[in-house]
Amino acid sequence: MKVDGVHYRSLWWNESDAALEIIDQRWLPHEFVTQQLGSLQDYATAIYELRVRGAPLIGATAAYGVAFAMQQEPTDRAFEEAYKVFHATRPTAINLKWALDRARAVVIPLAEAERFPAALQFAHDLADADVETNRMIGVHGLEIIREIAAGKPAGEPVNLLTHCNAGWIATVDWGTATSPMYHAHDAGISIHTWVDETRPRNQGSLTSWELGSHGIPHTYIVDNAGGHLMQHGQVDMVIVGTDRTTRAGDVCNKIGTYLKALAAKANGVPFYVALPSSTIDWTVRDGRKEIPIEERDGREISHIFWGKNAVGEVTEVQITPDGVQVANPAFDVTPAGLVTGLITERGVCEASEEALAAMFPDLAG
Amino acid sequence: MKVDGVHYRSLWWNESDAALEIIDQRWLPHEFVTQQLGSLQDYATAIYELRVRGAPLIGATAAYGVAFAMQQEPTDRAFEEAYKVFHATRPTAINLKWALDRARAVVIPLAEAERFPAALQFAHDLADADVETNRMIGVHGLEIIREIAAGKPAGEPVNLLTHCNAGWIATVDWGTATSPMYHAHDAGISIHTWVDETRPRNQGSLTSWELGSHGIPHTYIVDNAGGHLMQHGQVDMVIVGTDRTTRAGDVCNKIGTYLKALAAKANGVPFYVALPSSTIDWTVRDGRKEIPIEERDGREISHIFWGKNAVGEVTEVQITPDGVQVANPAFDVTPAGLVTGLITERGVCEASEEALAAMFPDLAG
Repeated sequence: MKVDGVHYRSLWWNESDAALEIIDQRWLPHEFVTQQLGSLQDYATAIYELRVRGAPLIGATAAYGVAFAMQQEPTDRAFEEAYKVFHATRPTAINLKWALDRARAVVIPLAEAERFPAALQFAHDLADADVETNRMIGVHGLEIIREIAAGKPAGEPVNLLTHCNAGWIATVDWGTATSPMYHAHDAGISIHTWVDETRPRNQGSLTSWELGSHGIPHTYIVDNAGGHLMQHGQVDMVIVGTDRTTRAGDVCNKIGTYLKALAAKANGVPFYVALPSSTIDWTVRDGRKEIPIEERDGREISHIFWGKNAVGEVTEVQITPDGVQVANPAFDVTPAGLVTGLITERGVCEASEEALAAMFPDLAG
Repeated sequence: MKVDGVHYRSLWWNESDAALEIIDQRWLPHEFVTQQLGSLQDYATAIYELRVRGAPLIGATAAYGVAFAMQQEPTDRAFEEAYKVFHATRPTAINLKWALDRARAVVIPLAEAERFPAALQFAHDLADADVETNRMIGVHGLEIIREIAAGKPAGEPVNLLTHCNAGWIATVDWGTATSPMYHAHDAGISIHTWVDETRPRNQGSLTSWELGSHGIPHTYIVDNAGGHLMQHGQVDMVIVGTDRTTRAGDVCNKIGTYLKALAAKANGVPFYVALPSSTIDWTVRDGRKEIPIEERDGREISHIFWGKNAVGEVTEVQITPDGVQVANPAFDVTPAGLVTGLITERGVCEASEEALAAMFPDLAG
């Protein structure tokens, strides 16, 4: 999407330099820094240090990393070295391994001279497929926003609320939860988004940066505020992303999503989840019982890592008493019964086993 | 309550120096600093700069301030000067004005020689009355915790959850929501408290400091986590304070309380509100419709004021993008229907007009 009027993807191949460019997201929202990756280690570091983040973006970065490795030395040995280095950066990221395995299937059968162009094309295709999936999520989500807009008094924006950053910088472009927002804005529908801060990692500041850079009116709020806003009719629709959706439509997403879903239900606010079908886990039915919730480092809670101090330096501060015990469950599960609908690349469906199976008969098994 | 094994109130009269001592709460949770107030300006600054905070504590500080003024010069002129100076520190604090008006009624009719001792006794009585009210809240709340403990397997603590700081440092002693916790702990009942961070002002760090200083096991969590914990049976009871309760039992408390009440209801967790009857507003019935919600400075959200940096300095950092639009509603209203019970100094009652009127026939009018 746009940054200061210029369209960006979150990574792009620089044809003249024959090298990948990324946005170094560690400096957001305070600085917009891009980086050209010039070595295998650059790629690995970009993934490991979360300069790029979000499953689709990590997968695409690794695919370009394989292309880079084949550009340097198109041997089996070089491929396996690259595979090993990239896989080790985030060993639990399913999407990363999936991209590397697919790259192997593309590259290894080929003659060495064909490997770099084929790997590069594979990476381009992977990135483009992500963009297209997210674009379609936006196309379908747009219709819901359009309908809400039609029911509002002229001149009043549709008020959306989102949690975390399911935005374009967590994908190659468009994002998931944000894609309907970009589509609506670009279609000339007046919208305004309440952006949840999303403690502990404050990804709301990324969403705020994204929306602001594209020109979408929005207001940053603490995670505590959403219930009050819904109670007072100030939210027309909630749209969030998801890390994993069960075959029954339970939604595992960033911690706090469940509280917003409860408030939406209590106040008659439609609650939508935007997702590519690749995040549906067809092996799981009951999210609350079956999905283990990752417990992350307590320092995410006791410390703020990305504050900017009075002289403009990004600096870390401790906000809790010394030595306090902290718990940091990173996700929660919103039961399907609280979800108004799932916005997928194929269309919008109810959050139920029947509706999901009907929309994805080829995947449901 | 206790700090490092020593019992403190949040203010106390130093008999040997004939002067008031306070805890300078600006440095909590990072440092425990006490201060002796030696001038009228010291008292005013303590209130104005939130060195003391919480309605009962502000009222008591002002009452001691009047005593101080009468100690210096027991004239009508000196009284009125003190009244004016203190009232201007926080002009919207009802409790402050109430304490000053009561002090005037005590002091002014007296001969000058009698004024200082009478004003001091009035301040002592005011502080003691606050302590006794909060103690009784704890006595009644203790019984609820005792009952829950009786139903738990031996050795398992009762898991409580609280939001904001309705603690002893916001009162003269015991606190409101924390009073049942201190009583249970001191009675040998095993408890553990989940402490909500409570963005934007992170009063959870004060609650954590309090509980830790008294020796109560607790875990600091972000505001997003409570729903997940309740969904997984990890919370036995929620206890929060309130700034204002309507005659129908709607509870206006720190922003985010409502979300926790929704999660408690959805998961069958009892949700209690601890309050002195002085915070019941008998003139208001429907909290959502009738209580205007204070919108506070957006810098509370965009900036963290009380972080400790790598060299141990308490410093301020900005956490949002530059120039972002922020909304900061400071309170929300939890409808009576989500409240299991109100814990008052007279006992526990249902959150309903009938039950409140039956418990407080002398006040309900």
